Amino acid sequence: MDDNAALLRTFEALRAGVDRRLAELAPPAGSAPDRLVAAVRYALLAPGKRFRPMLALLAAAEFGAPEGAALDAACAFEMIHAASLILDDLPAMDDAGLRRGLPTIHRAFDEATAILAGVGLLNQAYAVIAADHALPGPLRADLTARAAHAVGFSGLIAGQARDLFDRDRTRDAAALDRLNHEKTGVLIIAAAQGGAAIAGAPVAAVEAVGVFARHIGLAFQIRDDLIDAQGSAEGAGKDVGKDAAMTTVVSALGLAGARQAMDGHLASAAAALGGVGAGDLLGRYVGGLFAGRKAAA
Amino acid sequence: MDDNAALLRTFEALRAGVDRRLAELAPPAGSAPDRLVAAVRYALLAPGKRFRPMLALLAAAEFGAPEGAALDAACAFEMIHAASLILDDLPAMDDAGLRRGLPTIHRAFDEATAILAGVGLLNQAYAVIAADHALPGPLRADLTARAAHAVGFSGLIAGQARDLFDRDRTRDAAALDRLNHEKTGVLIIAAAQGGAAIAGAPVAAVEAVGVFARHIGLAFQIRDDLIDAQGSAEGAGKDVGKDAAMTTVVSALGLAGARQAMDGHLASAAAALGGVGAGDLLGRYVGGLFAGRKAAA
Repeated sequence: MDDNAALLRTFEALRAGVDRRLAELAPPAGSAPDRLVAAVRYALLAPGKRFRPMLALLAAAEFGAPEGAALDAACAFEMIHAASLILDDLPAMDDAGLRRGLPTIHRAFDEATAILAGVGLLNQAYAVIAADHALPGPLRADLTARAAHAVGFSGLIAGQARDLFDRDRTRDAAALDRLNHEKTGVLIIAAAQGGAAIAGAPVAAVEAVGVFARHIGLAFQIRDDLIDAQGSAEGAGKDVGKDAAMTTVVSALGLAGARQAMDGHLASAAAALGGVGAGDLLGRYVGGLFAGRKAAA
Repeated sequence: MDDNAALLRTFEALRAGVDRRLAELAPPAGSAPDRLVAAVRYALLAPGKRFRPMLALLAAAEFGAPEGAALDAACAFEMIHAASLILDDLPAMDDAGLRRGLPTIHRAFDEATAILAGVGLLNQAYAVIAADHALPGPLRADLTARAAHAVGFSGLIAGQARDLFDRDRTRDAAALDRLNHEKTGVLIIAAAQGGAAIAGAPVAAVEAVGVFARHIGLAFQIRDDLIDAQGSAEGAGKDVGKDAAMTTVVSALGLAGARQAMDGHLASAAAALGGVGAGDLLGRYVGGLFAGRKAAA
């Protein structure tokens, strides 16, 4: 369909715009010790779907934000995501060797550089939001609060701690949903809701975007688990099979049950946006990702 | 002098107020995995001078901020400081065993918990500033920008990277000043200037507070180096003698030269505040610290 092809070109143009802006917002050579700058740029600019920025940009567009208004905030959410990947991969954490098809930062550089690059990227996200003077001050503070909530003791950091501390414990589906919500869902929600907030969407719409994003995040996690259970490292671009000793939705529900749960989340996500006058940009973007063969980046 | 005794009581009351507020702003038990919460509280609530919060509170007071207006922002700067200590002490960094008289977080807990606690505390600082609704949104964004600048690729992170990567290189006094500025000065400056900004101080006054804080930071670093060269771990509350293989201001200038440089910075700090109508709270507070026998916390 021509309409579909045009939409795909729009999505790709948005994604490419995120890549360009990320390259500008990353520290330039000479701004800090070379090795640190190189590590940060290696981690941040490695090819990726830019899923979180895309959600922010599309949510902003759905609710009428001017073009470009959400770009820097969208990039900030990608910085946070990249930071979390670096830190989760560390030897003291998951000790991963491969990420996005490339050696992890602590392997390509060293552990200290990886820690500093991860912390630096997280920090840079807040710097970028604070410096986005096109947005009113209260909105910048609101975006900071959303990001900080997603990262902190209710979000990524709590989830990573829970995952590490309880790694050998058998989890039921509800415990897995909570863990996956903390480890990936909260940031996806914050990015999507942040985009809607930048557009000045009504509170009910921002809430609906949050429900949408929550279900999308859970669906993607199950998809990752399915790929991990079935796939190869080559296809996934990161270590696979490492979750074999852990409970995942796949090990808890089986392959068919996991697929069913994933489809349920996708249906709930679509339903959430139905009632608040959102268009179908978000739904069609996510639908395209799930129709493809690649894992969520 | 009675006046002096009253001032000391005021300083101690402010410091105790910071301690109380930090205990409230730290994640409470049950809000995240227990081990993580315990590590964060252990690191943040260990006894300390609260030097950065005190500078923020006194700068705010000097320029007429209402009582308490700068308290949460002051605590945010202490959170960033505590985070930087945790991360600098990690095995991959300085591999320190003792901090503030207690085992470092990675020794008392484990390395993964220490990394998550450090990153969590940095993130919590931004959460606290963003949630400080008593301050106007643009001011919250301004404080975030100041903090992020101090942490990032021009500040703590760049300094730690430079320190690690070039540890064996001989440094001259100018290179040491730059390193010490990045590793400690920028955060001290941000805290002091943040307090002045909360008070709505004129730009020239905020600038002068920055010059004051820069010199105070360098003076404290030399003082730390002097203690390290002469002291014992018991007195300093942290590992000492670890800098023996590194260039410090003491090894570059000798004991007498280092003391002279320290006095020069203190004089420059005092001069900076002279011309902008600031009272002497900041000067008397810092003077009291230098008159005492303990290292800067």
